[in-house]
Amino acid sequence: MGMIGGGKDAFIGAIHRIAANSDGMIELVCGALNTNKDVAIESGRALFLPENRIYPTYQEMLEKEYNLPPEQRMDFVTIVTPNFAHFEPAMACLEKGFNVVIEKPITVTLDEANQLKKKVDATGLLLCLTHTYSGYPMVKEAKQLIKNGVIGKIRKIYVEYKQGWLSTLSEREGNAQAAWRTDPKKAGKSGVMGDIGTHAAHLAEYISGLHITHLCAQLNTIVQGRALDDDGSVLLKFENDASGVLIATQVAAGEENNLTINIYGDKGGMEWHQQEPNTLLLKWPGKPAEILRAGSAYLSEAAKNNCRTPGGHPEGYLEAFANIYKNFALALSAKINNEQSPCWIDYPTVEDGIRGMAFIENVVRSNESTEKFIDFII
Amino acid sequence: MGMIGGGKDAFIGAIHRIAANSDGMIELVCGALNTNKDVAIESGRALFLPENRIYPTYQEMLEKEYNLPPEQRMDFVTIVTPNFAHFEPAMACLEKGFNVVIEKPITVTLDEANQLKKKVDATGLLLCLTHTYSGYPMVKEAKQLIKNGVIGKIRKIYVEYKQGWLSTLSEREGNAQAAWRTDPKKAGKSGVMGDIGTHAAHLAEYISGLHITHLCAQLNTIVQGRALDDDGSVLLKFENDASGVLIATQVAAGEENNLTINIYGDKGGMEWHQQEPNTLLLKWPGKPAEILRAGSAYLSEAAKNNCRTPGGHPEGYLEAFANIYKNFALALSAKINNEQSPCWIDYPTVEDGIRGMAFIENVVRSNESTEKFIDFII
Amino acid sequence: MGMIGGGKDAFIGAIHRIAANSDGMIELVCGALNTNKDVAIESGRALFLPENRIYPTYQEMLEKEYNLPPEQRMDFVTIVTPNFAHFEPAMACLEKGFNVVIEKPITVTLDEANQLKKKVDATGLLLCLTHTYSGYPMVKEAKQLIKNGVIGKIRKIYVEYKQGWLSTLSEREGNAQAAWRTDPKKAGKSGVMGDIGTHAAHLAEYISGLHITHLCAQLNTIVQGRALDDDGSVLLKFENDASGVLIATQVAAGEENNLTINIYGDKGGMEWHQQEPNTLLLKWPGKPAEILRAGSAYLSEAAKNNCRTPGGHPEGYLEAFANIYKNFALALSAKINNEQSPCWIDYPTVEDGIRGMAFIENVVRSNESTEKFIDFII
Amino acid sequence: MGMIGGGKDAFIGAIHRIAANSDGMIELVCGALNTNKDVAIESGRALFLPENRIYPTYQEMLEKEYNLPPEQRMDFVTIVTPNFAHFEPAMACLEKGFNVVIEKPITVTLDEANQLKKKVDATGLLLCLTHTYSGYPMVKEAKQLIKNGVIGKIRKIYVEYKQGWLSTLSEREGNAQAAWRTDPKKAGKSGVMGDIGTHAAHLAEYISGLHITHLCAQLNTIVQGRALDDDGSVLLKFENDASGVLIATQVAAGEENNLTINIYGDKGGMEWHQQEPNTLLLKWPGKPAEILRAGSAYLSEAAKNNCRTPGGHPEGYLEAFANIYKNFALALSAKINNEQSPCWIDYPTVEDGIRGMAFIENVVRSNESTEKFIDFII
Repeated sequence: MGMIGGGKDAFIGAIHRIAANSDGMIELVCGALNTNKDVAIESGRALFLPENRIYPTYQEMLEKEYNLPPEQRMDFVTIVTPNFAHFEPAMACLEKGFNVVIEKPITVTLDEANQLKKKVDATGLLLCLTHTYSGYPMVKEAKQLIKNGVIGKIRKIYVEYKQGWLSTLSEREGNAQAAWRTDPKKAGKSGVMGDIGTHAAHLAEYISGLHITHLCAQLNTIVQGRALDDDGSVLLKFENDASGVLIATQVAAGEENNLTINIYGDKGGMEWHQQEPNTLLLKWPGKPAEILRAGSAYLSEAAKNNCRTPGGHPEGYLEAFANIYKNFALALSAKINNEQSPCWIDYPTVEDGIRGMAFIENVVRSNESTEKFIDFII
Repeated sequence: MGMIGGGKDAFIGAIHRIAANSDGMIELVCGALNTNKDVAIESGRALFLPENRIYPTYQEMLEKEYNLPPEQRMDFVTIVTPNFAHFEPAMACLEKGFNVVIEKPITVTLDEANQLKKKVDATGLLLCLTHTYSGYPMVKEAKQLIKNGVIGKIRKIYVEYKQGWLSTLSEREGNAQAAWRTDPKKAGKSGVMGDIGTHAAHLAEYISGLHITHLCAQLNTIVQGRALDDDGSVLLKFENDASGVLIATQVAAGEENNLTINIYGDKGGMEWHQQEPNTLLLKWPGKPAEILRAGSAYLSEAAKNNCRTPGGHPEGYLEAFANIYKNFALALSAKINNEQSPCWIDYPTVEDGIRGMAFIENVVRSNESTEKFIDFII
Repeated sequence: MGMIGGGKDAFIGAIHRIAANSDGMIELVCGALNTNKDVAIESGRALFLPENRIYPTYQEMLEKEYNLPPEQRMDFVTIVTPNFAHFEPAMACLEKGFNVVIEKPITVTLDEANQLKKKVDATGLLLCLTHTYSGYPMVKEAKQLIKNGVIGKIRKIYVEYKQGWLSTLSEREGNAQAAWRTDPKKAGKSGVMGDIGTHAAHLAEYISGLHITHLCAQLNTIVQGRALDDDGSVLLKFENDASGVLIATQVAAGEENNLTINIYGDKGGMEWHQQEPNTLLLKWPGKPAEILRAGSAYLSEAAKNNCRTPGGHPEGYLEAFANIYKNFALALSAKINNEQSPCWIDYPTVEDGIRGMAFIENVVRSNESTEKFIDFII
Repeated sequence: MGMIGGGKDAFIGAIHRIAANSDGMIELVCGALNTNKDVAIESGRALFLPENRIYPTYQEMLEKEYNLPPEQRMDFVTIVTPNFAHFEPAMACLEKGFNVVIEKPITVTLDEANQLKKKVDATGLLLCLTHTYSGYPMVKEAKQLIKNGVIGKIRKIYVEYKQGWLSTLSEREGNAQAAWRTDPKKAGKSGVMGDIGTHAAHLAEYISGLHITHLCAQLNTIVQGRALDDDGSVLLKFENDASGVLIATQVAAGEENNLTINIYGDKGGMEWHQQEPNTLLLKWPGKPAEILRAGSAYLSEAAKNNCRTPGGHPEGYLEAFANIYKNFALALSAKINNEQSPCWIDYPTVEDGIRGMAFIENVVRSNESTEKFIDFII
């Protein structure tokens, strides 16, 4: 694995490295870790990269790695730069024949995402988008249960993602994370929807297996002086007559990272909380609710293969993230070795990236419209 | 207290009697308990009412009680009939000079509610609407905390009320409760909003002290064959730049009576669940969340005066209901004795009834509109 | 119902009145509410008792009520005095032919409890001991499930009762409740075990259906200056090879009324918390845990007949207390009318009182012994 | 890092590797992974170890590694064999000058543990014992809070560790984990206390900073046919007049890995659950309880330095385990570089191992005694 971005003080880059590293399948071998050459070198040394594989620019990295013998060359590139700097390096990687992992959102515009898809289709390379929350075992269990009809035909999908860290104008208080995430040039057309709304939308579609078809959105910029929205609510219609609500806010003072989903079918309901991720609650009319737990023998193959510890030994965010890498690595390894992937392999791809970008653009368009529901255009 | 409706097999009538009876301040002395005379008599006897005060019709009850000497006469009337049968008896009571308690929603139309208000204003009589959930001590605490600015200027109000008991077409399966609640002639213009949406809206306005000013609603009739909506979601704008979301559904299979509210201000947030009503969670940026508990000495007077037991001895729905009656009885007693009510006295009045009816009508109007937000007209 | 004790400012007397009053089956008709005549009269008036049935002493109450015609006479007497003042009035009631309800613990010594039992047996009168916690519907459900073998042969019973209100020397700070409960002359041989340990022991025996046979106790007086123990832990052996632990403490700073029980059989386990009493958790090896909820249709008759509201409308401590009275009243009514009680009727009797007193005495004896386990002598 | 034991199918060996690998500070370079040579080789290859550093025996590993140049040689050895095979390799490592990490319990007897301590003292080498649960950030926070007097003088310590996986005779059902853990020759004098009781005792002493001074234990072999105890309860006395209870059971059917601790001081209480490890509850008399959360800025340095993700991104068992390795690696690195360790560094050492072995031996001795409390002899 080579890494673009993620030099010292970058939050998500470090998370990617821990995650990639978790299962002994992936090794960081090179990086272009910062656009500032000195920081790039310092960061590379801190990670014990060999001096000759600490690159000052991603272009040089791609060039030099490309020229290495295949068995020495990195197998794929991870792009962990801010949103606006995803597209170009991703395209460059694909053009040089490197598989890619990209931190979400995939790009800044839907058009860019579509271009990436074309390139992926043309090259046959793998592109993985790190929608972390779909890596949790109990999220995979939820998906399987719905797929198997356990809660019946889906009627309602409620997903909410509430954070509080942007309750004040932290982008002016020296918070680098806040600074780029609230800057339209770096983050894209929507703040809250680009940063966390896409996670919520992805989770809803991933678990339910249903696509959003129409939406009605209201975005707010609640903290005065902020350049992008920090709060939004969206009424949703899904395929197959399901409907729902998506809430995403970064000004819910006192919340940490409260991503919660409730789905109801005609036979029962389910509830999952990212902050206590090892539990999935199933609710039934006329009989007791059930508490499904990660690490249990009764889970689906998809869930069990994404657990590392037995029940009661809690797994968390890093393991969910590691599952994205693990699934991707297994798929990549199968591809390299010309083998069949295990049937439970599953990671977000460029298609999910396109839906995410379309979600942002449709929400922004709906917000600007006085019409109630608009079609979800992709 | 005299009772109109609430004969045998009526759910809410029995609840009203337990609630009214709780604090030794109110006694059921007469009733017109059913429109069927035999049932009325049988029901009255089962409640040990004196034979001569078991009335076949509410008209007769009002007439005969009116003619009793004041010290024997009932002090007020409780109306616990289905929604469509609230307005006429209420008006009749007020005209005869009786104070009134009405099960919510106050009437079937906004116009009727406005007529009742005029009559209340003209007569100076008391009218209490049993929005039970505002009787919980921790709801009162939440209201006081917001009033005192503890969580700052309100930004977001999320309220959801999820039930599952109408997940199937239970009105065709012999469920009498379901039958009238899903019948437009008896329940009003909206099923879910009349039955539970008004509770949610009232709770949001009651705790926050803010009125809804605009809304954008989507109603659904999810169970095929049902004559009224059973599900809805509403985007809300409140006074003072607050916004929010209201969810009300009766087809969330597996849910019981899950009324939950989350409110966020610029200083902190709060969370309350009706199913575990003795806890109020306060959330703070930069410091630990706090768990406030009913029965604690640190609560406001408003909360403490609505607790009957010390902390850790849980109170529930019946006590919340009893608090509505207790507050009304104290206000009535103060009025009768020409005294000042205690400052913490607080019960829903005809004004709340009007807002509730307006909520239903505005939601229905919004649902029929293709415009996104409509003004909340009253 | 006549009441002995429970005048103004008495905590538990008021609770008894609310509880007795809940279901419209019991009416307070007279009382000897305080040993101070003026307080007795003032208290009686506050409760709207007729002047001629506000008695200055319980002796006078028993005498005068006895001389009333049977249909006017009180049906039973409730004794809500401090522990030391239970025995004499109870005996006097039985001697006069009155059925009795007694706040727990039944007496101050095992010997007194045995005398009461003899008198009960001799007179055929009913004696009800208000072990409130056995009135909760989910406690009754737990008992039924075990009786039906649902969790198999019982292996372990863990019960803990943690309060914090005696964390400081509150008996010297003007707390009247604390004063008598920590006074050996008024409370009995053990403070913590008399006040709350007996509740825990009763709950364990009630749910499991198993008697304690041996125990090993350690009592502590943790707050300096206190005259009685305020903390204790007991290793337990039960019939049928079950074993367990009982924890009772009143110095767990920050706890309210945390009574919790966990029972494990060879097929599964169960968990119940008094502070969230409407939920009973069942745990299973190899399949998901289940959440049983009060008010649900799937519960046993015993549980359902002790619920007043449908699922999701929480019931609490007062309703549990009311269930004790309701069961007793139904049994008394059946007896008076020479009918069969409903099969689900169940309330604590003099036998439970004897086991409670024996528990206290055995714990005290074990605490004073250097031997590890002692036989539970009764 | 070299590893002894932990070949394919070993549960805890894999956990150690993930944990050691987490922070990019430790690399597995060699191993003697199984006593069966073929399995050892196969296991080493599966971990991509170089062929010449896959050793058939630990003796050969120590010899060959010792002869490597210091910069190539492993820095320390991890011993992840069953309990009975800890002492000899540990001693051999120390004798060859290698630092050691040992899976708990440190040895099978207290005497062996004391011999290791002597050797550690004599050589100045580091020995780390993987009491995983002390690696959780909120456990470290709890320790700091008590150290700083936040909950006052400690009065009560309740610790319970409930598992259900030995509810049946799984050692006869082909469960290899169960087989050696219930075999006195491999596990030591006590089953439940060696396997999980020592974790509970360590947690209690670690957080409270108090040593057990006396105990009164009851052990049970509940599943018929089992060769070692599988259940036990212990009354505890600690230094400084604190007392408590320790419960450890492996037959609590339906429990996963329920390690819970409650500690009460004269100012407040705390509660922590291993299964939801990112939350620490503080309870206060007279004010609301507080919910402290991992990843929060308000935590102590000790807690914050053991967090990898911000609040709301849950960490789990593997991260707690990784913290043990991280603290050890930092201490080792400081020692090698002759630097000062950061002040927050903290990992279990041979002293903890000795207390653990003493705990087991004292519990077994107490269980066999008819005396109530015995001195905790070390």
